[in-house]
Amino acid sequence: MKKLIRNGTIITASEYCRADLLIEDGKIACIGTNIGDEADVKIDAQDKLIFPGGIDAHVHMNVPCSDGSVSAGYDTETMAAAIGGTTTILDYVLQEYGKSMQESIDGASALAVNQAAVDYGFHVIVTNPDAQTIAEIEDLIPSGITSFKLFMANDLALDDQQLLKFMEELARLGGLACVHAENGAIIAYLQNKHRQKKQLEPYYHFQSRPLSSENEAINRAITLAKTADCAMLVAHVSNLEGVKIITGARASTPIYIESCPHYLVLDDEEYGQGEFTTAKYVISPPLRSKEEKEKLWVGIKNKAIDIISSDHNGFNYATHKQLGKEDYTRIPNGGPGIEQRFTLMYHALTERGIDLSRFVDLIATKPAKIFGLFPQKGTIAPGSDADLVIFDPELEWTITAKEQQQASDYTPYEGLRMKGGVAKVLLRGEVIVDAGKYVGKPGDGKFIARQTLRSQNGKV
Amino acid sequence: MKKLIRNGTIITASEYCRADLLIEDGKIACIGTNIGDEADVKIDAQDKLIFPGGIDAHVHMNVPCSDGSVSAGYDTETMAAAIGGTTTILDYVLQEYGKSMQESIDGASALAVNQAAVDYGFHVIVTNPDAQTIAEIEDLIPSGITSFKLFMANDLALDDQQLLKFMEELARLGGLACVHAENGAIIAYLQNKHRQKKQLEPYYHFQSRPLSSENEAINRAITLAKTADCAMLVAHVSNLEGVKIITGARASTPIYIESCPHYLVLDDEEYGQGEFTTAKYVISPPLRSKEEKEKLWVGIKNKAIDIISSDHNGFNYATHKQLGKEDYTRIPNGGPGIEQRFTLMYHALTERGIDLSRFVDLIATKPAKIFGLFPQKGTIAPGSDADLVIFDPELEWTITAKEQQQASDYTPYEGLRMKGGVAKVLLRGEVIVDAGKYVGKPGDGKFIARQTLRSQNGKV
Amino acid sequence: MKKLIRNGTIITASEYCRADLLIEDGKIACIGTNIGDEADVKIDAQDKLIFPGGIDAHVHMNVPCSDGSVSAGYDTETMAAAIGGTTTILDYVLQEYGKSMQESIDGASALAVNQAAVDYGFHVIVTNPDAQTIAEIEDLIPSGITSFKLFMANDLALDDQQLLKFMEELARLGGLACVHAENGAIIAYLQNKHRQKKQLEPYYHFQSRPLSSENEAINRAITLAKTADCAMLVAHVSNLEGVKIITGARASTPIYIESCPHYLVLDDEEYGQGEFTTAKYVISPPLRSKEEKEKLWVGIKNKAIDIISSDHNGFNYATHKQLGKEDYTRIPNGGPGIEQRFTLMYHALTERGIDLSRFVDLIATKPAKIFGLFPQKGTIAPGSDADLVIFDPELEWTITAKEQQQASDYTPYEGLRMKGGVAKVLLRGEVIVDAGKYVGKPGDGKFIARQTLRSQNGKV
Amino acid sequence: MKKLIRNGTIITASEYCRADLLIEDGKIACIGTNIGDEADVKIDAQDKLIFPGGIDAHVHMNVPCSDGSVSAGYDTETMAAAIGGTTTILDYVLQEYGKSMQESIDGASALAVNQAAVDYGFHVIVTNPDAQTIAEIEDLIPSGITSFKLFMANDLALDDQQLLKFMEELARLGGLACVHAENGAIIAYLQNKHRQKKQLEPYYHFQSRPLSSENEAINRAITLAKTADCAMLVAHVSNLEGVKIITGARASTPIYIESCPHYLVLDDEEYGQGEFTTAKYVISPPLRSKEEKEKLWVGIKNKAIDIISSDHNGFNYATHKQLGKEDYTRIPNGGPGIEQRFTLMYHALTERGIDLSRFVDLIATKPAKIFGLFPQKGTIAPGSDADLVIFDPELEWTITAKEQQQASDYTPYEGLRMKGGVAKVLLRGEVIVDAGKYVGKPGDGKFIARQTLRSQNGKV
Repeated sequence: MKKLIRNGTIITASEYCRADLLIEDGKIACIGTNIGDEADVKIDAQDKLIFPGGIDAHVHMNVPCSDGSVSAGYDTETMAAAIGGTTTILDYVLQEYGKSMQESIDGASALAVNQAAVDYGFHVIVTNPDAQTIAEIEDLIPSGITSFKLFMANDLALDDQQLLKFMEELARLGGLACVHAENGAIIAYLQNKHRQKKQLEPYYHFQSRPLSSENEAINRAITLAKTADCAMLVAHVSNLEGVKIITGARASTPIYIESCPHYLVLDDEEYGQGEFTTAKYVISPPLRSKEEKEKLWVGIKNKAIDIISSDHNGFNYATHKQLGKEDYTRIPNGGPGIEQRFTLMYHALTERGIDLSRFVDLIATKPAKIFGLFPQKGTIAPGSDADLVIFDPELEWTITAKEQQQASDYTPYEGLRMKGGVAKVLLRGEVIVDAGKYVGKPGDGKFIARQTLRSQNGKV
Repeated sequence: MKKLIRNGTIITASEYCRADLLIEDGKIACIGTNIGDEADVKIDAQDKLIFPGGIDAHVHMNVPCSDGSVSAGYDTETMAAAIGGTTTILDYVLQEYGKSMQESIDGASALAVNQAAVDYGFHVIVTNPDAQTIAEIEDLIPSGITSFKLFMANDLALDDQQLLKFMEELARLGGLACVHAENGAIIAYLQNKHRQKKQLEPYYHFQSRPLSSENEAINRAITLAKTADCAMLVAHVSNLEGVKIITGARASTPIYIESCPHYLVLDDEEYGQGEFTTAKYVISPPLRSKEEKEKLWVGIKNKAIDIISSDHNGFNYATHKQLGKEDYTRIPNGGPGIEQRFTLMYHALTERGIDLSRFVDLIATKPAKIFGLFPQKGTIAPGSDADLVIFDPELEWTITAKEQQQASDYTPYEGLRMKGGVAKVLLRGEVIVDAGKYVGKPGDGKFIARQTLRSQNGKV
Repeated sequence: MKKLIRNGTIITASEYCRADLLIEDGKIACIGTNIGDEADVKIDAQDKLIFPGGIDAHVHMNVPCSDGSVSAGYDTETMAAAIGGTTTILDYVLQEYGKSMQESIDGASALAVNQAAVDYGFHVIVTNPDAQTIAEIEDLIPSGITSFKLFMANDLALDDQQLLKFMEELARLGGLACVHAENGAIIAYLQNKHRQKKQLEPYYHFQSRPLSSENEAINRAITLAKTADCAMLVAHVSNLEGVKIITGARASTPIYIESCPHYLVLDDEEYGQGEFTTAKYVISPPLRSKEEKEKLWVGIKNKAIDIISSDHNGFNYATHKQLGKEDYTRIPNGGPGIEQRFTLMYHALTERGIDLSRFVDLIATKPAKIFGLFPQKGTIAPGSDADLVIFDPELEWTITAKEQQQASDYTPYEGLRMKGGVAKVLLRGEVIVDAGKYVGKPGDGKFIARQTLRSQNGKV
Repeated sequence: MKKLIRNGTIITASEYCRADLLIEDGKIACIGTNIGDEADVKIDAQDKLIFPGGIDAHVHMNVPCSDGSVSAGYDTETMAAAIGGTTTILDYVLQEYGKSMQESIDGASALAVNQAAVDYGFHVIVTNPDAQTIAEIEDLIPSGITSFKLFMANDLALDDQQLLKFMEELARLGGLACVHAENGAIIAYLQNKHRQKKQLEPYYHFQSRPLSSENEAINRAITLAKTADCAMLVAHVSNLEGVKIITGARASTPIYIESCPHYLVLDDEEYGQGEFTTAKYVISPPLRSKEEKEKLWVGIKNKAIDIISSDHNGFNYATHKQLGKEDYTRIPNGGPGIEQRFTLMYHALTERGIDLSRFVDLIATKPAKIFGLFPQKGTIAPGSDADLVIFDPELEWTITAKEQQQASDYTPYEGLRMKGGVAKVLLRGEVIVDAGKYVGKPGDGKFIARQTLRSQNGKV
């Protein structure tokens, strides 16, 4: 079965080219200016851009809340990913209390296998870094689970000794440490102050997580990673000073930087006077000041920031967020974004005159390379999976919760005008999104076993 | 006329892919895994890497010396470029005394048109930045001369006022300022000290150009470029502190960094005890310490350095360099390297475990993008010129002056062992190098009119 | 003749002590808790602080304007200094066109000798750094003129080569280079832009001298001073980044930092909408933003800033400043402050909880040490000149032009409320100010021949 | 009883003055050039320097070792202090297992009261920061114990939450946190690696405590102190990068820097090949490289480093250090230095041309101010305790263990030649050292109740 996409402009992390594209058996077979006309299906991409399918390397599915409910799962959210131009997601699977990492993965896998509308992989959030858990790394990496999330704050926080021990084993096996870098003690200290003064509105969530707390943890994480010589990604960096700490420290141990659309597009004005509706923006790290937001763009422009992920959490305002009605520390942290990330970043980067190859690199290629999906994913090249976004740069539309696919009853980006939108999405050669509608089959998304940075051709 | 290159591994600035490559009319027509077998000529690239042809964005041809002689020219040196894997060079043409920039270009052009073995473009070295010269920019840019060299030291030094004025006009028209950043006054001061103490051996060349002199000028150049909002490339940055000054200052005005192989591979031990043979290493800025050399690799690893050029000057030790026998300040500055740059950098990067896509970016893609040659040059994509290097990663050989093509009677890299070497080179689809021999026709190299950063698709 | 000051609290750059103070022959004879009661004159300093007399190391007297008029001179301004708590001033004497440094000093000296109400010394502003001028340094230093002002901007700007040459000779002889660090070319470039757009109001003075222009020049001046190993003071540093550049570069060559009260107390809001009255604030460097003003206090707190001088220029708004009515570049740069510096800084530092020893160091001791007046001046110790300020910490008053002694028809500090004020001032043991009135005799101020840093006991 | 010291040169943190000095009732009564001749005792200080008595703010007495022995105590070591020019020490008293801070102080006090040859105060090393301990701060501070040591490494390490809690209370009460800043987890990780590889020689002590571990902890401590707005001293900073981290972070929360003679005079060459004799240099942080040692002097020159303390631990090589014969992690950390600190620093500073006022500030005045002893101690001024060192700048001698007073059987400074030595020492007016001999009475040293920074006149 052959598919031909004609007349589009193909954009990769280093190229712009006007060419046709032949797909065979779900793979890119050929890119050229004279491919001919033989194909079972032809798609005209005149005036369209063709991007590699987005890779969202930081999403959370089915996150448990304090009332026993969970955030939205694979069924709705992978469809939302697809509609938004994302063809591969990496889910942070929580190591459940009393369970092994493998058991927790198995649980997530059982859901994904039937529901996933896009391809997927797993990281593990390590909650119990005991000897048994550490011993599992050796089995998980060959099975394609090559990255592990380590918290430095929140209930899941590991201490420095635990971090080093885990990193040591990751380093030995070529795995990647993903850290949530905030200083848990500082946050707890400030939360306690707030509690004493009855400052319990969502606004104080913002106050409880200052830049200093994030940047201290970033600095410490780097020192630990370098001590263990363990490759590391600092997740959701929210400010330029944090970015600079990392780039200033880069030497032989690879240290990557992830940021998120909300730190680049939103700011602390969303916390307003602390009215409870601002619980929608209770995420960690929190939104920063307008000035910090602007400064963070320097990290995009100068290529210090490696990837942009959504840090998606499919929470509802009407239910989940209400858990913290009386006390901001009980508001589930996070918000939805899997659906908007791709176009939002396209829009924001082009608006600032930043090259589309940089967009592709942030949103697809670099995530693929860092997380061991390359060159199967993340690019448009012969032999790669035909995960493609056919994109209409002229489409104008507005983000609203009402019209979104993702399950949440709100979006942090409500009302933002977009120029540019997804026309069609192909997953391994199959059209799964057309004219804004999901036309694929849930469950067609496949688990992707990932390489390590060491074993993969095409380093970062 | 169709040419098919089969079974190679194509490497671009973002891709690795095993695919065949079809060339039609000197352009890449198609890249794919199932291109078929129809072609007039077939080249087997089994076990070979296929790179875009190298772009050497900083070379000097026919440089006049104090005795009326000139350094080697297009005839020998473009052939050397070709043999070394470089298919496009950008020559820094000196605005001659009393002449317009255009007249000087015409002079270079008259030589190149008959002699060039590879494609070429011109920058101008501005020596007389008066109103008339500045007025010429407006004509030169549309004719494809889009970058201009401004010296801050040496006899050609412009002062800050002249720099700003020139940059102002470049900014208006979208041109690029290339600066030689060293503080001329500091150098003159130290030279004078040396002269007073009769310290006239080549070793004092090194002493006369300290890091502080380079880094002061880099800092000043940045301030000026930002004042005029003029895109700038800092040429031949020799040390990491200089790199950091630039990356720390990057904001909206684009500022690019060029370094050279010699700063990454050689060090000040070459200046030995100052015996006159070390005149071979009299270049500006000079080689730095072993420690600085190592530190500069951080700039390669963390992607701060944009491009690597040879800063080639085809001087002879037996003739040109002897001009400074009695006084190091009269030694012509510079040395040969056009032929070794490509393989030397391949070797040095792979030796340090750096990804080949990074190599391609430094040596071809980024130079093409910064200097307005993209996507015609600098990449392997449908529609681009079929400038290709078929490279044998297993070839082992040694650099020696005896066996080099370039005209100089020495090479700074004498005796270095290389792993990896050029097998074949194609220029716009024609094989011009085979088995280490130039098999093309001098004069087949063409002038390439360049875009500005503004007008070019595929930004940096 | 003995004088006894009783019951005061003596404050020096390192001490607080409650003690009596005996003066003999104009010198401090004894400090103690049991000095006894024998004296010709007794002054009760109960509830008062006793400070060393202020040293204002940066003032301009009789500055020529474009219309042939001059700014206020020794007669009025040294009396203002005295009233304000300053007992020694260092005047920047302009090397006049066609004259030697010595001749220019002689001119200033002729005026000072009859008019000076406080002790004084001279720096020279070097305008013609030719061989003859440089040769004069060797004579001036032994005569007690040990510091020389070198401009990097304005009509008086020296280029890097001239700076180095002058610094080289200063270094040899132990003199001190005082630099006005702004990049003249950048300022000229921006002034030219403004002229083209008819932006000629005083507001554009502010726009024409950005932080980048000051900080570039600071960085360059440091590089030059280190090259020549010449001790240097960077005059009137207006921003913390500039301070940091200096402290980051400090190594073996001594580099000192001067700032001024206006950068610490005023900000760019004074430039308002650019109405011509804001010409009162046309100084160089200009006032900076509120944010920069706050940041500069870090340099006070962390002891990076060495001294605070007034950079006094006794201009009138009604006459001198009007010269630039049509074009801000013709407004005489500078403003009055010799009278307010001492109390203004006392007030501003105590308001921020900064220790009084730090105040004394900034305003008297460190200026004395840097400029070779120590220990004769700048401290309260046996053997030192009895230059003293008896200060009432409880006095409250308001700065107004109407009630000032200095000749200007305005003060930049109009309306500021002060807590603390000068009660009495003694110059070499003689009371010259009492109850806010000058009670001395003009001409009693003496020329002070200064040491070099090298020859002086009590280094910085 | 009156004592007169005549003809000396008095040097304080800001003054040089040739004057006589009258002592009454153990206090300085008068300093002057004409004090007269009336006194019970006269001391001639012709050709001598008179310094304030040294304050050693970081010493350890009677430190328990793993075999139940203790390091040298008040009897021998305070005599050594006196002989070395130190008249006040601050002992870090360990909160003993199961005891309150007060009980531990009482224990130290019981020994000191009978044995101390110099004045003394106590800090507490907090080992059990529970609610009860924290509650004690409120009683200890008014009793004159105003500073508390918090470890971030070693067996005594507190975690961030404990640090913050303790600092919060200190901040409320105006106390000072003294931190031992090294990252305990990194050290444990590296020690573990060494243990696995049987790398158990003292050399690996050095390897187990890299710069990165110290500097990470410094950065973290600053973040915590600023969060709690608690004044902090970073103890024994060993490297310039650490110093820079602190100075770069200084804002409103006061953060002070202590370093020690060994980091300025010795380097890692002492660790040699790891032979066990190098156990003498097993201290924490360890000695750094020659290059780092040189760089640290920048922190002395640019006044970033506030104080120099000995970090004295009176261990014996033949007994205490042997405890780690088989395993470097069991070697008691620390070494003797209370006796040499004063003269060693005098010698090292003058050798580098640094001003004697800087010496006084580092060794006496600033320690007094930071630790709340000023102006009773740390200076020479009317009303201050007559703690004085009469110093002979011409004396030449050699440091040897054989001739030292301190109890240890070795000195890290063995064989160093000194120019300058202590001639006489006075404690509150009494001569306690003469011609190198202790001539006082053990037990005459008194406990000094200290102020807080807030309550003390004469801030830092």
